[in-house]
Amino acid sequence: MLALNKLYVVGIGPGAADQMTVRALRALEKCDVIAGYGVYVDLVKPLLPDKEYLVTPMRKEADRCRMAIDSALTGKTVAMISSGDAGVYGMAGLIYELSEGKDVEIEVIPGVTAALSGGAVLGAPLTHDFAVISLSDLLTPWDKIEKRLDCAAEADLCMVIYNPASHRRADYLRQACQIVLRHASPETVCGVVRNIGREGEMMQIMTLKELAEYPADMFTTVFIGNCQTKVVDGRMVTPRGYRDV
Amino acid sequence: MLALNKLYVVGIGPGAADQMTVRALRALEKCDVIAGYGVYVDLVKPLLPDKEYLVTPMRKEADRCRMAIDSALTGKTVAMISSGDAGVYGMAGLIYELSEGKDVEIEVIPGVTAALSGGAVLGAPLTHDFAVISLSDLLTPWDKIEKRLDCAAEADLCMVIYNPASHRRADYLRQACQIVLRHASPETVCGVVRNIGREGEMMQIMTLKELAEYPADMFTTVFIGNCQTKVVDGRMVTPRGYRDV
Repeated sequence: MLALNKLYVVGIGPGAADQMTVRALRALEKCDVIAGYGVYVDLVKPLLPDKEYLVTPMRKEADRCRMAIDSALTGKTVAMISSGDAGVYGMAGLIYELSEGKDVEIEVIPGVTAALSGGAVLGAPLTHDFAVISLSDLLTPWDKIEKRLDCAAEADLCMVIYNPASHRRADYLRQACQIVLRHASPETVCGVVRNIGREGEMMQIMTLKELAEYPADMFTTVFIGNCQTKVVDGRMVTPRGYRDV
Repeated sequence: MLALNKLYVVGIGPGAADQMTVRALRALEKCDVIAGYGVYVDLVKPLLPDKEYLVTPMRKEADRCRMAIDSALTGKTVAMISSGDAGVYGMAGLIYELSEGKDVEIEVIPGVTAALSGGAVLGAPLTHDFAVISLSDLLTPWDKIEKRLDCAAEADLCMVIYNPASHRRADYLRQACQIVLRHASPETVCGVVRNIGREGEMMQIMTLKELAEYPADMFTTVFIGNCQTKVVDGRMVTPRGYRDV
């Protein structure tokens, strides 16, 4: 089968358009249509003003993916853009599921997810093994999330917490910290980053005990260190191992 | 304190130079000196032939970092480059530790780590929570690594395994799979990617039982799915949750 219809699923990185890879930029240049949420489209549009844009503000995610697939099936070259990486809690999986058996060639172009971009703002919190866990219980039962936090803490994994809070889930981060505190010291070095790569970017380093009281919002990414993580010149740094280099 | 001496720690992504971000490229353009292993320098040099290059082939990592820091302390703008992300098992942490208290302003520029670039080659294996675990026991006791594999599997986290094998550690991946098999089905969908983003890139999808017998090498990144991970049109896809969208 010769696939004529090309659909790129592109992660554009954390915020400003210069955080996307050169490869991502080249793929967008090749496209006829760029589809995505309004905020992401607004980041890309100034670079590539002459494209057709499919802005999908309020629809359900499956509908957004179908819209991009349908556009590709008309013979146009389409990019579905998302912030961060296209795979990490992203649309790439849904695109594959919804285009199964259809004549669309999909190419996923990776991007810098918040674990990496936020880590770089804080210093070097992810120099050793880590887990990425979302506190959103929209599609995942809360007891599953609790189990993961408990196991990750028991294993002394650094953790990156995505979606630490929303209006509806104001106290989830506190609950998560209480689970981690079963295994980790209250003095464990933690960090938060807000608005990564965008205007208003800020970071703060604190203890796990303080993190439990931190008013995270949906623009916050949270980092919990392992037992070796320390503060060096105001940065959060996890050493490369448990032995001296 | 006005920092005059600037040291960028730059992740250049998985392989070809177009996998680095525009921001990384801009930082390298601003530098006087680019330091790194020969293979990474060779990737960057064609783009920026007029820079001073510090090639550090056989030295110990701490020495490489000191060399870059010392160069920055002479007033030059320096970039220390590494593959993937500068923070994930990277040099950023060591740079912070070794420059503590010195008059060097460090800026970490994130890049696409193998979990993301390899994931994009396989499909969308990391759509849900995951752990990144290295099997290298050079700086980490093996029992700590075993504990992490066991906990991650118990929590049904997808896993990305870095450094699955070396000459000295030929059977570590098999051992790791046996630990995961305590909790996961032998039919769990897994994938491997070799030479990500470089010539000779290949991927293969297999079961966990088959992965235990796979002859991984130091150029291989390994992905282990969760209980929901499936194969869609020949790709490894982890759904976004445990409920229907």
